Amino acid sequence: MKFSIKKTSLHKVLSSVGRASSTFSPLPILSGIKFDLRNDALTLIASDSNISIKETIYASKDNELNISEEGSVVLESRYILESVRKLDSDIIHLEIIDGALTRISGNHAEYMINGSKSDLYPNIDFTKPEASFKVPGRTLKEVIDQTAFVCSTSEDRPIFTGVNFKTDGNLLHCVATDSYRLAKKVVDLGVEMDFNISVPASNLYEVAKSIQDGNDVEIAVSDKLVQFYVEDTLIQSRLIDGIFPDVNRLIPSEFGFELLISKSHFITAIDRSSFLKSEGYWTVKLEASQDTIELSSKSQEIGSSQEVLNPIEYKGGFLKISFSGRYMMEALKSFKHDEILIKFVGEMQAFVLIDSKDDSILQLVLPVRTFD
Amino acid sequence: MKFSIKKTSLHKVLSSVGRASSTFSPLPILSGIKFDLRNDALTLIASDSNISIKETIYASKDNELNISEEGSVVLESRYILESVRKLDSDIIHLEIIDGALTRISGNHAEYMINGSKSDLYPNIDFTKPEASFKVPGRTLKEVIDQTAFVCSTSEDRPIFTGVNFKTDGNLLHCVATDSYRLAKKVVDLGVEMDFNISVPASNLYEVAKSIQDGNDVEIAVSDKLVQFYVEDTLIQSRLIDGIFPDVNRLIPSEFGFELLISKSHFITAIDRSSFLKSEGYWTVKLEASQDTIELSSKSQEIGSSQEVLNPIEYKGGFLKISFSGRYMMEALKSFKHDEILIKFVGEMQAFVLIDSKDDSILQLVLPVRTFD
Repeated sequence: MKFSIKKTSLHKVLSSVGRASSTFSPLPILSGIKFDLRNDALTLIASDSNISIKETIYASKDNELNISEEGSVVLESRYILESVRKLDSDIIHLEIIDGALTRISGNHAEYMINGSKSDLYPNIDFTKPEASFKVPGRTLKEVIDQTAFVCSTSEDRPIFTGVNFKTDGNLLHCVATDSYRLAKKVVDLGVEMDFNISVPASNLYEVAKSIQDGNDVEIAVSDKLVQFYVEDTLIQSRLIDGIFPDVNRLIPSEFGFELLISKSHFITAIDRSSFLKSEGYWTVKLEASQDTIELSSKSQEIGSSQEVLNPIEYKGGFLKISFSGRYMMEALKSFKHDEILIKFVGEMQAFVLIDSKDDSILQLVLPVRTFD
Repeated sequence: MKFSIKKTSLHKVLSSVGRASSTFSPLPILSGIKFDLRNDALTLIASDSNISIKETIYASKDNELNISEEGSVVLESRYILESVRKLDSDIIHLEIIDGALTRISGNHAEYMINGSKSDLYPNIDFTKPEASFKVPGRTLKEVIDQTAFVCSTSEDRPIFTGVNFKTDGNLLHCVATDSYRLAKKVVDLGVEMDFNISVPASNLYEVAKSIQDGNDVEIAVSDKLVQFYVEDTLIQSRLIDGIFPDVNRLIPSEFGFELLISKSHFITAIDRSSFLKSEGYWTVKLEASQDTIELSSKSQEIGSSQEVLNPIEYKGGFLKISFSGRYMMEALKSFKHDEILIKFVGEMQAFVLIDSKDDSILQLVLPVRTFD
């Protein structure tokens, strides 16, 4: 293997695939990036058991890829990344010197990195499933931003660590929940599809990072895996086993109280009480009536906070409800517009947050019981 | 106690004294800040066993300090800081409501913070020692920047965790060492003083943070403590017990090799090999001759790096010497100018670094033995 390439082009794809390499894998070679140089293209692959990323670079005037000799090798992800980043040269030269010992050079500096032979690297199957569709990158990014943060980080119930994507004719229902809150986003695919899959939130974040606004992303789905084709990057994720519960019955449809409020104003007010934490957790109490809307928080140890809110509109009688400050802030932050409608059923009932200018997204939060 | 004050003024002094409060002290009240409101001034004090900071604010048009009722209280450092930071108001009102329960309010929001009574706070003696002198803030900051980084962070030999300040007539010798390297800075005080003290590096960093260029800092010294008067801030540090060794005999005076090199060029070159670490440590080998100057580094596990340097000038025959990459980089970074002269005695001898435009500062580094 021997080639030269523009430093910026190589660094970009190495950073991209490097995200899938794993330092903690029981298989040490998976902490590396597999280089495969053929004919007219350089392919880079990294993978752990959870996510695999493949980058293909075709020789172009832009990347100045110049192939002298085909071949392949596996290089430790962090070392090859650091080597390329630190070389002070526009063009980087890579060459296998002996077995898997690889020279990376540029200008008057060079590295010799101990690699591994590529036949030791497990074979990753990137075959494209038949069922596939396209969505605008911007839409996919929005789906991820508005739902994935809700997912549970605990492995107690693995199904809750991912976002569920379920088709209903042309519509894609994207739902995430950790059993204390829920996010639901509906997207029109413009084409009829039929699948019901749950994708790990952590892998969706990697997809979101790869998306540049403007272009479409192709998504291919099988019953084992999902593939995201983002420009020249292919991100392949495992699916989470298990059946995602039907959450639609949890979303109330009749409400007795409605609070229309500025998102930014409400976030600042909740944030003001955020240091009144007990064991990392803080509860905020909302007391609303036609006269005044008050927000308060209390910690036995530290003290208390109190604040009068300035809503756009409030409909309903006296309401007292307590909730997690963090959950409310995160739900509010997920909306694109500033005017948010919060609809309550009653003191101990789940409430929903809606963007008054975008009905594709809904957030639901369960209240917290307090003793005052 | 009841007063109001400009938010920015209060936040500034709270951040300043807060640095001395200790969350880990065996005496819980030391995690607080003592407020003392008298006549025409608000005094804030925080302290751990190591460092004490006192801020005094006199009522002025600038800070809008408005005193309604004298009094004192101790408030938990992080809570009072967060309260003041998060209140969305130009003016902050502080008032003891009941015992030590304190209201902090601004605009339409308020906090109630559980404080402690001030008579529970230990009495910190801020009496000014007789011996004192002034130095420009800029000079003091430079002394700290150029020496304190060398200090040891291990408590094995406490005397090496501080910078030694020793007078010699008008001259102040500032020396730091961790027994593998050494920094020496000499400052002309313009006045004859007589002391020999060692001040913890961590406290000197706090002093450096308080210094705004342009003003003088007054330093008062006793055999127990040292005080730094930086504008309205008084920082008082304990001294380190023990006798600082005489290091002058360690500094060689005759050299066989001289390398004049650009600091930035040399730093980048050393940094290029910085990921070839074994157990957090990396050794760089310099091979110099009249023909070529080469830098190389090697890690059994990872691989190696090699680079040809472009010095300004080299005097001497063939020299091979190895050193810690980190120590060399830190020594180089301490200099103000770019042209650095490195003077070597021989392969296994300590070498010194000198700023060719500033003879007040010298860095010394011990070489590392290697087996190739």
